[in-house]
Amino acid sequence: MSTIKKVVLAYSGGLDTSAIIPWLKENYDCEVIAFVADVGQGEEELVGIEEKAIASGASACYIADLKEEMVSEYIYPSLKTGAMYEGKYLLGTSMARPIIAKAQVECALEVGADALCHGCTGKGNDQVRFESAFAALAPHLKVIAPWREWDLRSREALLDYLAERKIPCTASLEKIYSRDANAWHISTEGGVLEDTWNQPNELCWVWTVDPEQAPDQAETVTLMVEKGEVTAVDGQAMSPYQVLTTLNEKGSRHGVGRIDIVENRLVGMKSRGCYETPGGTIMMEALRGVEQLVLDKDCFEFREELGLKASHLIYDGRWFTPLCKSILAAADELAEAVTGEVVVKLYKGQATVVQKRSINSLYSEEFATFGEDDVYDHSHAGGFIRLYSLSSRIRALNEKKQK
Amino acid sequence: MSTIKKVVLAYSGGLDTSAIIPWLKENYDCEVIAFVADVGQGEEELVGIEEKAIASGASACYIADLKEEMVSEYIYPSLKTGAMYEGKYLLGTSMARPIIAKAQVECALEVGADALCHGCTGKGNDQVRFESAFAALAPHLKVIAPWREWDLRSREALLDYLAERKIPCTASLEKIYSRDANAWHISTEGGVLEDTWNQPNELCWVWTVDPEQAPDQAETVTLMVEKGEVTAVDGQAMSPYQVLTTLNEKGSRHGVGRIDIVENRLVGMKSRGCYETPGGTIMMEALRGVEQLVLDKDCFEFREELGLKASHLIYDGRWFTPLCKSILAAADELAEAVTGEVVVKLYKGQATVVQKRSINSLYSEEFATFGEDDVYDHSHAGGFIRLYSLSSRIRALNEKKQK
Amino acid sequence: MSTIKKVVLAYSGGLDTSAIIPWLKENYDCEVIAFVADVGQGEEELVGIEEKAIASGASACYIADLKEEMVSEYIYPSLKTGAMYEGKYLLGTSMARPIIAKAQVECALEVGADALCHGCTGKGNDQVRFESAFAALAPHLKVIAPWREWDLRSREALLDYLAERKIPCTASLEKIYSRDANAWHISTEGGVLEDTWNQPNELCWVWTVDPEQAPDQAETVTLMVEKGEVTAVDGQAMSPYQVLTTLNEKGSRHGVGRIDIVENRLVGMKSRGCYETPGGTIMMEALRGVEQLVLDKDCFEFREELGLKASHLIYDGRWFTPLCKSILAAADELAEAVTGEVVVKLYKGQATVVQKRSINSLYSEEFATFGEDDVYDHSHAGGFIRLYSLSSRIRALNEKKQK
Amino acid sequence: MSTIKKVVLAYSGGLDTSAIIPWLKENYDCEVIAFVADVGQGEEELVGIEEKAIASGASACYIADLKEEMVSEYIYPSLKTGAMYEGKYLLGTSMARPIIAKAQVECALEVGADALCHGCTGKGNDQVRFESAFAALAPHLKVIAPWREWDLRSREALLDYLAERKIPCTASLEKIYSRDANAWHISTEGGVLEDTWNQPNELCWVWTVDPEQAPDQAETVTLMVEKGEVTAVDGQAMSPYQVLTTLNEKGSRHGVGRIDIVENRLVGMKSRGCYETPGGTIMMEALRGVEQLVLDKDCFEFREELGLKASHLIYDGRWFTPLCKSILAAADELAEAVTGEVVVKLYKGQATVVQKRSINSLYSEEFATFGEDDVYDHSHAGGFIRLYSLSSRIRALNEKKQK
Repeated sequence: MSTIKKVVLAYSGGLDTSAIIPWLKENYDCEVIAFVADVGQGEEELVGIEEKAIASGASACYIADLKEEMVSEYIYPSLKTGAMYEGKYLLGTSMARPIIAKAQVECALEVGADALCHGCTGKGNDQVRFESAFAALAPHLKVIAPWREWDLRSREALLDYLAERKIPCTASLEKIYSRDANAWHISTEGGVLEDTWNQPNELCWVWTVDPEQAPDQAETVTLMVEKGEVTAVDGQAMSPYQVLTTLNEKGSRHGVGRIDIVENRLVGMKSRGCYETPGGTIMMEALRGVEQLVLDKDCFEFREELGLKASHLIYDGRWFTPLCKSILAAADELAEAVTGEVVVKLYKGQATVVQKRSINSLYSEEFATFGEDDVYDHSHAGGFIRLYSLSSRIRALNEKKQK
Repeated sequence: MSTIKKVVLAYSGGLDTSAIIPWLKENYDCEVIAFVADVGQGEEELVGIEEKAIASGASACYIADLKEEMVSEYIYPSLKTGAMYEGKYLLGTSMARPIIAKAQVECALEVGADALCHGCTGKGNDQVRFESAFAALAPHLKVIAPWREWDLRSREALLDYLAERKIPCTASLEKIYSRDANAWHISTEGGVLEDTWNQPNELCWVWTVDPEQAPDQAETVTLMVEKGEVTAVDGQAMSPYQVLTTLNEKGSRHGVGRIDIVENRLVGMKSRGCYETPGGTIMMEALRGVEQLVLDKDCFEFREELGLKASHLIYDGRWFTPLCKSILAAADELAEAVTGEVVVKLYKGQATVVQKRSINSLYSEEFATFGEDDVYDHSHAGGFIRLYSLSSRIRALNEKKQK
Repeated sequence: MSTIKKVVLAYSGGLDTSAIIPWLKENYDCEVIAFVADVGQGEEELVGIEEKAIASGASACYIADLKEEMVSEYIYPSLKTGAMYEGKYLLGTSMARPIIAKAQVECALEVGADALCHGCTGKGNDQVRFESAFAALAPHLKVIAPWREWDLRSREALLDYLAERKIPCTASLEKIYSRDANAWHISTEGGVLEDTWNQPNELCWVWTVDPEQAPDQAETVTLMVEKGEVTAVDGQAMSPYQVLTTLNEKGSRHGVGRIDIVENRLVGMKSRGCYETPGGTIMMEALRGVEQLVLDKDCFEFREELGLKASHLIYDGRWFTPLCKSILAAADELAEAVTGEVVVKLYKGQATVVQKRSINSLYSEEFATFGEDDVYDHSHAGGFIRLYSLSSRIRALNEKKQK
Repeated sequence: MSTIKKVVLAYSGGLDTSAIIPWLKENYDCEVIAFVADVGQGEEELVGIEEKAIASGASACYIADLKEEMVSEYIYPSLKTGAMYEGKYLLGTSMARPIIAKAQVECALEVGADALCHGCTGKGNDQVRFESAFAALAPHLKVIAPWREWDLRSREALLDYLAERKIPCTASLEKIYSRDANAWHISTEGGVLEDTWNQPNELCWVWTVDPEQAPDQAETVTLMVEKGEVTAVDGQAMSPYQVLTTLNEKGSRHGVGRIDIVENRLVGMKSRGCYETPGGTIMMEALRGVEQLVLDKDCFEFREELGLKASHLIYDGRWFTPLCKSILAAADELAEAVTGEVVVKLYKGQATVVQKRSINSLYSEEFATFGEDDVYDHSHAGGFIRLYSLSSRIRALNEKKQK
């Protein structure tokens, strides 16, 4: 093992990263700095976290509030592309990784560390996302991934490891479901979900109410969209993070934003998860609603292609690449016109745009309907069709001739 | 106007095509054959249609039952691609046009007609779809599109036109909403929908119950999928058309398959419609569920690209083109593995896959979860990540060196 | 015909637009302003053009020098995308149309005209390019396309038309080949080219020497590329237009940049042309050479996709659309790294990059070759391959099990 | 190291695989079967190869003649897609790997081996291509990649290794360039090429004459193309492999098919190579020539997209995947119409189609030229343009209104 003096660990306060602190010190004989990213995972996870880190052996613990930045610099740009991984997943976990990695790198540079460490397992996507960001942002720093090195293979082993070292830990032995949360989403994996023929049960959902238990009364919410970004809710101007938390609250109440998906991990195998993205689902629906009014046919199709591409880039941890910049620049350009207002109805698990309008709307009652107008003459269509189908006609005449 | 002796009209029995028959005879001095395509638009539209056609002046009326063929030869192949126009629309009207046009051409060739006629308006997509099919299948036949020729400009004018000729007609003067139906879907346009800031009202929906009025009790339905096609419902093997009608019935009862969309027409303007595709929505959800199990990452992405492309081809009336054949061939190949069983839950407007399994499933509890296994070693990930992020690393080292 | 008071005509001084001036005055009873765009079509076409326009009946003639702007604002951005229409065509005619149309619109707004006119025929692409630009830039101005209106159907008819009006014209009766030129390219259509089984003859090529007659001695030229733009030739810093003319001269001498293509026109039929783009071919080759050094695998692939898309947008006259802006923004982002130096060898019709280097080069002798190094360890590959082929492995194991 | 009894080695007779035989026996204590694939790499490499293998310690040596199969089952399908990796590379090495791997697997299954071995280095693409094929075709067999295991790090070490074991070997100590050849191409890497600022020298090219030394007299060759496959040369019907060798001979004589490229390897770094594909370059040019006649605009664009995708699939060793099957099926469908005849001119390094014709040609002198005809009316264009640019017009009117 190479010589390392000071390592900055992405620390969550959970069982894994608690064990990593002493393990790093023992195996690398180095100082460990705990870095905590506040991405809206919830107060309960942050309370007393500094004390916990120190008690586990960290020489310092830094907490960075990344909540607003995550929404404005990562989530909003992604939403403009319309990225949904494999048609469904709003990329909740993926979206948080680059911003955490970037802040962790900044911390490492500041404290003069020579290594970075994360607690991601060796079968997941997150290790790739963290380490791809590290490679792009600080290629000279060493990376330690304990889960690919140590021989601790179970919660029991980890708890024993901590107990042996008399490091206090409140984690329970039994933990059926593994979860990840940030302001944008919460994910649940494991337990009954491991058999795809099982239905999710009530333990698979955390934030949102079961649609069947949601209010019988629908609720509407009005969103103001400016250049592809939600800027106000129900007439109230808000920061991006405020928009998200406000919509999370409303969406959760109506069971909005649940998906149960078997997805392709970047590392080659499939996994199943239940994801909740209540606010995100509402925003996505709202943006697409405004787009219906303002994007022409070709722009809409390209936006869909961009979303498909972006979904893979983001899922695969390629945020800090020239390709991602290029895709985001293209989406940003399309979003220039995406300004308008939509009313979204929330009811029993669904968010549906029921009203929409925009100063950039290409829809015109006058043009679309039956009668004559200035910009469109029925007779134009004849010529259009003739040219539009000309190659089919020539091909068919050709084939006829050959017979 | 060129000389035409016999024309085959795509006849629906409605006001427009009823007026077209005498108009054709008067303006082209030709024999008119009414051709009726039964694509599952409903018995009420077909009852007495032959008599009606004759009473309007047609010399003959042929009715072709295209229901099974439409589902098996047009809808099923489209579903394999995953085509949803502009992210939402299951292409209900679009899908019916090529099969009607093809059968109409066959009728024309059989009766020795020298022209084809349709009743589509000059601002819509359907004229393009019909005439593109005609160009590909019978480029030597003349095409007459009365709506682009005559000066009848309102329902009142059409009713007067018929009355003057003493042709009986039961159509009412007032018709706020224009609708199109076939086994796959029903669409509603006009009325309150013409202002995008208006919510749809109860007149905008025909087949499906309002989700808010749907049963409080969810229902599940089990679908068997073989090579991308639904072959059985709740254990009962069925023909494609039977599958569709069975699922239409179930879906409608739970308010499943409604969309309210502003879409880009092929002819350059936007229009708004409320579409209901209850059975189709369930099938689409079911197929995507099986795909989650059997398609790998790259296949899934390509299937999504094919769906995007196919959605435009089908919407734009390019079914009978080599490009469409090529896209369908690609999708067919991917669908080879799409075999499995899914349970779909219907509740208050939603169809959600809650259970799924497949003999071709690439998901494996053993591979996805925490522990070691034969095919995957945690340590593999280290090398993977290193190579995966190599260009980022080289780029970053390069940039560092330049500073 | 609607009332028009003053029309601005895109005037070339050739036979067609010379006849259009009196035709417009007679048929629209309006004032005609001749607008001449200097896009580098050559001095001989511009000499005395103002007098000619006045003699033909124009009330004024404005000449705009668009040469530098065309190269810097249209050609350079296009080159960053790598756009080659149908794999071969550097879009010489297409690229000039939007800039001419834009300047023509500006002229019309300045002189207070109420209409725009062009001399493009009714079977070509240029009418679409002009009128699409007009629609985007000045939708309120009327557009007159005489070739789609008048009944003049031959050069003879046009010459007679002018002679009857005693308008002097030096055009000859016989003109076998039709050509279009600007600083970027010259095209030749018609004559022997109308049969695809004919070889082009010496009349089909204008600027470039026949490769078989080109110097037996190869020549090299060194290009400096900065952010995707050629900024210096053989050590000499130059403006974009100077770069182009310098390379045109060099390329022509060696027979570089000829293509003989049957292409799909936007209006549905195919046409054949011989195009010469000597300088452009050298630049394209040079840019792609630098890209080989600096773009990673995914970026290179996306750049190719952008080029494919851009080739259609530009060919189809969709320059002034949000989609085009979006594509160009994406390409611009990728071009950020495209800085370097290349040596291009010119020999008997070919331009080949033989040397290349870049400060952003991701190529490293150290990494690519046999030995060990810091950033890459042979053993990493084992893990990479294992994960890379994991889904194939699982699929194959699955199939084995099923047997 | 796991227990292995019998391993089948992809044996070339070169230094590396000669050393691998004893190394396998010593390190795995197993029987080694040498498998030689004849993919047209040349007689000189095959002469006495069986004796050599036995002398090195192999218990048996099997030679499979894959030449015809390689061209008909791998190269021809690839050519239909138009695949050129990173715009230039005809995938010469990539294309041979899957067929070798497949035959090697078949050999292994026949002789009852439990492992497969290849001699690819740990920094290249070929290891991935071989092992991806193995994973798809025989996931149960172990794979041994000595270059990632042993500590032999130079030609000298390998020669010493063989000498110590008294295994005869004619390989020289000094070998500046590394080459790979099959019927389709020969590649050269290393030496002066390692600095991208160096020009290739005469040692970098093996098959083809220097264009500057090629005949001053151009030569033409006539190719018959049927459904995307070259079936005859100069009037002579030939098997695919015969076509290839015939065109290789002709192309080489004129210096056709050289490229000098810096490419992105799959494993993350860039490498530079000089590749010669004389026959392939002629065929590619010929196929694209016929396509110009028979593919409409949309088909041509999709074929280009397929080529782009296929280039990555083939380069990346993903031949035996459902995605590759899907792409090839799509290309096959498009190739249905690609039938015709072309004359290709060979001159000083270039292959240029100078004549082309096809019974499926959509080109028509009548349609493309000036005059009126039956299928196209000048006036159609007006309507086409109006609708084509409608969204631009509505957008622009909208913007005007907002001012």
